Amino acid sequence: MHRSYSLDVSAPLLRTQGYVDGRWISAASVFPVLDPATGQEIARVSDCGPAEAKQAVDAAYKAFHSWKQYTAKERSVLLRKWFELMTLHKDELAQLITFECVTTSEYLYCSTFQINTLKCLFYEMRKPQEVFVKVYCNKHSSSSCCASLRVRVLLKMAADTVKKASMELGGHAPFIVFDSADLDKAVGGAMASKFRNSGQTCVCSNRFLVQSAVYDRFVEKLGRAMDAELRLGHGSEPDTTQGPLINARAAEKVLHQISDAVSRGAKVVKGGKRLDGSFMEPTLLADVTADMLCTKEETFGPLVPVIRFNTEEEALAIANATSVGLAGYFYSQDVSQIWRVAEALEVGMVGVNEGLVSTAEAAFGGVKESGLGREGSKYGVDEYLEVKYVCFGGLKP
Amino acid sequence: MHRSYSLDVSAPLLRTQGYVDGRWISAASVFPVLDPATGQEIARVSDCGPAEAKQAVDAAYKAFHSWKQYTAKERSVLLRKWFELMTLHKDELAQLITFECVTTSEYLYCSTFQINTLKCLFYEMRKPQEVFVKVYCNKHSSSSCCASLRVRVLLKMAADTVKKASMELGGHAPFIVFDSADLDKAVGGAMASKFRNSGQTCVCSNRFLVQSAVYDRFVEKLGRAMDAELRLGHGSEPDTTQGPLINARAAEKVLHQISDAVSRGAKVVKGGKRLDGSFMEPTLLADVTADMLCTKEETFGPLVPVIRFNTEEEALAIANATSVGLAGYFYSQDVSQIWRVAEALEVGMVGVNEGLVSTAEAAFGGVKESGLGREGSKYGVDEYLEVKYVCFGGLKP
Amino acid sequence: MHRSYSLDVSAPLLRTQGYVDGRWISAASVFPVLDPATGQEIARVSDCGPAEAKQAVDAAYKAFHSWKQYTAKERSVLLRKWFELMTLHKDELAQLITFECVTTSEYLYCSTFQINTLKCLFYEMRKPQEVFVKVYCNKHSSSSCCASLRVRVLLKMAADTVKKASMELGGHAPFIVFDSADLDKAVGGAMASKFRNSGQTCVCSNRFLVQSAVYDRFVEKLGRAMDAELRLGHGSEPDTTQGPLINARAAEKVLHQISDAVSRGAKVVKGGKRLDGSFMEPTLLADVTADMLCTKEETFGPLVPVIRFNTEEEALAIANATSVGLAGYFYSQDVSQIWRVAEALEVGMVGVNEGLVSTAEAAFGGVKESGLGREGSKYGVDEYLEVKYVCFGGLKP
Amino acid sequence: MHRSYSLDVSAPLLRTQGYVDGRWISAASVFPVLDPATGQEIARVSDCGPAEAKQAVDAAYKAFHSWKQYTAKERSVLLRKWFELMTLHKDELAQLITFECVTTSEYLYCSTFQINTLKCLFYEMRKPQEVFVKVYCNKHSSSSCCASLRVRVLLKMAADTVKKASMELGGHAPFIVFDSADLDKAVGGAMASKFRNSGQTCVCSNRFLVQSAVYDRFVEKLGRAMDAELRLGHGSEPDTTQGPLINARAAEKVLHQISDAVSRGAKVVKGGKRLDGSFMEPTLLADVTADMLCTKEETFGPLVPVIRFNTEEEALAIANATSVGLAGYFYSQDVSQIWRVAEALEVGMVGVNEGLVSTAEAAFGGVKESGLGREGSKYGVDEYLEVKYVCFGGLKP
Repeated sequence: MHRSYSLDVSAPLLRTQGYVDGRWISAASVFPVLDPATGQEIARVSDCGPAEAKQAVDAAYKAFHSWKQYTAKERSVLLRKWFELMTLHKDELAQLITFECVTTSEYLYCSTFQINTLKCLFYEMRKPQEVFVKVYCNKHSSSSCCASLRVRVLLKMAADTVKKASMELGGHAPFIVFDSADLDKAVGGAMASKFRNSGQTCVCSNRFLVQSAVYDRFVEKLGRAMDAELRLGHGSEPDTTQGPLINARAAEKVLHQISDAVSRGAKVVKGGKRLDGSFMEPTLLADVTADMLCTKEETFGPLVPVIRFNTEEEALAIANATSVGLAGYFYSQDVSQIWRVAEALEVGMVGVNEGLVSTAEAAFGGVKESGLGREGSKYGVDEYLEVKYVCFGGLKP
Repeated sequence: MHRSYSLDVSAPLLRTQGYVDGRWISAASVFPVLDPATGQEIARVSDCGPAEAKQAVDAAYKAFHSWKQYTAKERSVLLRKWFELMTLHKDELAQLITFECVTTSEYLYCSTFQINTLKCLFYEMRKPQEVFVKVYCNKHSSSSCCASLRVRVLLKMAADTVKKASMELGGHAPFIVFDSADLDKAVGGAMASKFRNSGQTCVCSNRFLVQSAVYDRFVEKLGRAMDAELRLGHGSEPDTTQGPLINARAAEKVLHQISDAVSRGAKVVKGGKRLDGSFMEPTLLADVTADMLCTKEETFGPLVPVIRFNTEEEALAIANATSVGLAGYFYSQDVSQIWRVAEALEVGMVGVNEGLVSTAEAAFGGVKESGLGREGSKYGVDEYLEVKYVCFGGLKP
Repeated sequence: MHRSYSLDVSAPLLRTQGYVDGRWISAASVFPVLDPATGQEIARVSDCGPAEAKQAVDAAYKAFHSWKQYTAKERSVLLRKWFELMTLHKDELAQLITFECVTTSEYLYCSTFQINTLKCLFYEMRKPQEVFVKVYCNKHSSSSCCASLRVRVLLKMAADTVKKASMELGGHAPFIVFDSADLDKAVGGAMASKFRNSGQTCVCSNRFLVQSAVYDRFVEKLGRAMDAELRLGHGSEPDTTQGPLINARAAEKVLHQISDAVSRGAKVVKGGKRLDGSFMEPTLLADVTADMLCTKEETFGPLVPVIRFNTEEEALAIANATSVGLAGYFYSQDVSQIWRVAEALEVGMVGVNEGLVSTAEAAFGGVKESGLGREGSKYGVDEYLEVKYVCFGGLKP
Repeated sequence: MHRSYSLDVSAPLLRTQGYVDGRWISAASVFPVLDPATGQEIARVSDCGPAEAKQAVDAAYKAFHSWKQYTAKERSVLLRKWFELMTLHKDELAQLITFECVTTSEYLYCSTFQINTLKCLFYEMRKPQEVFVKVYCNKHSSSSCCASLRVRVLLKMAADTVKKASMELGGHAPFIVFDSADLDKAVGGAMASKFRNSGQTCVCSNRFLVQSAVYDRFVEKLGRAMDAELRLGHGSEPDTTQGPLINARAAEKVLHQISDAVSRGAKVVKGGKRLDGSFMEPTLLADVTADMLCTKEETFGPLVPVIRFNTEEEALAIANATSVGLAGYFYSQDVSQIWRVAEALEVGMVGVNEGLVSTAEAAFGGVKESGLGREGSKYGVDEYLEVKYVCFGGLKP
């Protein structure tokens, strides 16, 4: 992990400024963007403040008045073209994601340069430039938990002017394995669901609940799969499956959850150690209970805490005992149980015998404190529409 | 207006307590419900506090778990039965509305006793009693403006737990008459839209904009219609069309807007005086301009301020120069103008040559700060639903 | 079965004429309506011809022009009122169904008197009388097979004037029991699905396919259930579960299928005999094969032919080897198999571990030669609507 | 029109065979494809018969079983790719349309070579080749009227096996100009609607109804527009707006309608003569009445018969006095009239102050004998879908 890696993205796609009203703008100060795998500085980015933000909002408001004249068809032509440009430059975009590892703004799903690069591609279309605005500010530090707090602050601000808000917060997803499950498939689903982006997505499984009769076998099989399939390293290495965590604080959080669990009786089956930089060993904990930190708060890292349960009712009680509800997963071959549990899980998305559920065709979003609204599917666009009722009266018969 | 009127509603439908968990509960103190037309006390109602509120919320949460087992069909049967009971008792409900004149909680669309009576009718069905909870608290004083403030407070509270909120706030509806309008129909629409419930509904026209060529004739015709059609009095009198305002403060607000307008050059064409109690004369003001209070804030009373304009563009600028956007009305016989203005008005509901637009079949709701979500129509139920995505995976081909 | 039964329906609800243009009309001749259980004549009904039919069509066309002015809401109020009248008279309607046993026009789902009675109730509403027309003609004799032929004739006639047609023909529904099935539930579903209206509904199971490992046990359990639950008799007797078939020819058809099956190696496990009138013993046949008449053509009677199969693929091949596809049923506890078979069955309605699927909330209808369009659910109304596209052009910006 | 024109399409895109089961097949005989503007033979095409048709149907049936495994997304990717290939070759496709002028099968919207070329492009994708089948047979001669007859024959055949059919037949579209109309826009709409493809589309206006007060002015203005805008010639000439009719018989039909109209009192204002080949002069007839052939049957050519009317009721009576109802157009500036007439016209598509209504976003199709089903818009796909209802029962609570 100590080798040196270089980012190979053409200069026109690597901008370090904000973008407002069709022009790139610089701010008085800058902030560094680091590669979390090596700690190397990749570039320095304009650190915008209230003035630039105001300028950006004004520009966006002005742009809206021309943009709203575009028909849906015209917009779709633009978006398709943008999509094709992204596809053309997908290797460069992939590199940017790898190097930044979503350092500064992971909660936006997109890194600084990624967004700038998307903007550059948008720019190539020579079309309504002012529609797209973007400024960065380094005050927004990173971690899922903070993100949730910040989102609440935003919601409160939106309340002042009764703004409609659509958002997606943390998940703390349960992953339940019932006695009737196909264990090999369950292990496969657990690997896919937990270790995607090193455990750092909002739909990653965060709490594993396994029924008594299959508990030991599941833990053993999962441990073996972790050994066989996971490789830590820099994202530029072809055989790497697990990169660094977003920053050192994220790694410390995982470590803290592990030591808390162990102090309360959990057993480390695999991993457990922090490595160089923000790298964290994929870790498997057995004999986990509901009073441990790792079952109470979201991890956002490569930790698999496995809780044992006896009845479906007990599993549902643990799974639903949280204020959030984004995704949930369970493995079972019992038809009645499948429908019962799919209905009872208090989440917006359920994976039945499936560890990866996100797809553009389906409604992505959660219930409870996991967010408002849905993305994707035919429902996703609802958040951007207002129903207008026009009553044509006074017609002579 | 000094006669004495008596409320003729059978005792079982006139309850003064809160209703929690299938039982009527009393609070330590009470507050009086007054008839705004006479100032007479109708009854004293339990003034509930935090303890009763907590009890009610707990009961509702518990009830939800049995209620959610009901199918849509079972619920519809219950609601239909309730509807039939309301229809059966519609005279008593009408009396309650008349006497209370929505005193304590007009912004909820329903008065204290109305809700209690609806509860009584629900009770008759001997079905899931605990589904319905209700407590009153006298801290909530009344006026549209305060209501809006309170709603923002509620929204902020909802933000803490990321709750979905659907609400409807003030309207400040514009009513525009273009030169091509059928003037008699426009006057009819103005009367219907302005004087419904003495100007105290959120969709009442609040600002009248009339194009120069027809301005004088419109004002004259409207004045004559007001003379011919409006009769102040107690709601129990058969020929009354205009009752009292909700309370004395509401009447004072109207009076204040009138004197402000007059001091800035407006002319009182009809009415202008406050009468006994909270009665207010229907008032018509000409030569109103955009800098007067009555065009800047919602009236919620029987005041018609008429502004003169020259061009469509000017009218739209005035109409949209507000932070709210519930309903808007305009009269025109120009096909192109009709579509242009219907699209340009920043409101959720547009009446084209029509002064009354509310109907269960259409989506009721506003844009900007007028609220979130829609009531009625097929869209109304969306606010009460969460989309749940179940991905059935792991199927063997 | 030789007792005498009397029909107890009030005269105003028991009309024997046609109904055209708001008036009851008599035809030159009459035809008798018989009770199939006793052969007794219930009444004589006007036997209308081309002249009356022409009159009815003209009246309906004229009525359409006023009826189309009614809004959906107005129509719903009328239909609700009609529904309430039917509910009020449900005992009389039930008697009429029992006595006529859908003699003359079973494929219309409604008997002569039933329709007349519904008309009488409609009449009570004193509303657009001319909307409802109805004439009877005795040329339409009865049997599912003939019905299908007649429907094809109607479709060809519709083709001349390119009329949209929605219809539902025969079903020949397969009922498959896989090895993993809950056998007791499968037997319950088979009883419900087969013996509803003595096997005379288009969704009745017509071919039973049972996997080898559970074949013998299923046949034994089903035989026991038939003994325990089925009681032949007149529909007026409280403990009757099986009435007569619609007429003697229907009973002969069942008998013919039985003797054909036996001659080819099938074994009669229960029943097998024709009784008085058009009564037919509920009959269970084992060792049935695909070359027997009873697996090739629809029975429309109380016959259960059970075929043995080894693989899912084999069962699907047999189930789909028919030109019709209305309903299909299967019992399995294997999740993957459930989705596979539900998708592969070439029918419009699938019962998974369920023998009764019809409900107003779901789309009723078939694929292949089983019909066109759907009834019920939100899709049912599509067959009665035409999409009209209005392009508003020439608007000045 | 006597110059020589050559078709410049690359050989791989110009195939003369049928296409079945992934292979190009030749038939025993051939038929010539002619350029209707010059009468020159373009090529000879395989004249397939029952054997080839049977082969094609069998291949399509077989292909369906693999094609139905493709998800909607996979299909959309293929269709998008095909679309992009068509766009890439749009000049060659345009030439083919011009030269063939839809000679052999115009009612299919596509000429022989066009379809073959589309097939060639499909072939390039190296994807499920067998999905696409196509054979030609020269028995199908051409004219809209015959097409309608043939469609009825197809519908009758479909009835035998209860097949769902979606089709679009003749239109006979009315084009109404009311007194309040913007006459210049009405003339523009008339030109666009009538002379698209020389009057040979099913949505071309076929009967012009003009209200008395504007009748003379409309006829004069339209005549002037015809002089100014229409240029007859070969489609390869850049300034040609009007090509030849599909064949000589089509030109004769127009001529016959003109002489019939003149013999009954109509006046030829413009054109009226047949030219070389199948070219026909754009023709304007005034004083046309409802008893003339040209108002009774569809023209499918460049003839404008203008009828005079006095009242809206009279215009609607004439417009609706036909057994078909595809498109209808009218010009009016009276809001009430616009909604009244748009609703009263018995057609599937209405152009209000607009002469061109077809667009992929809107539902294309007619009422009465103009067809079944809709193309385009979200409704278009309904014709290709079957609703399948799966009832999951027997679940243990």
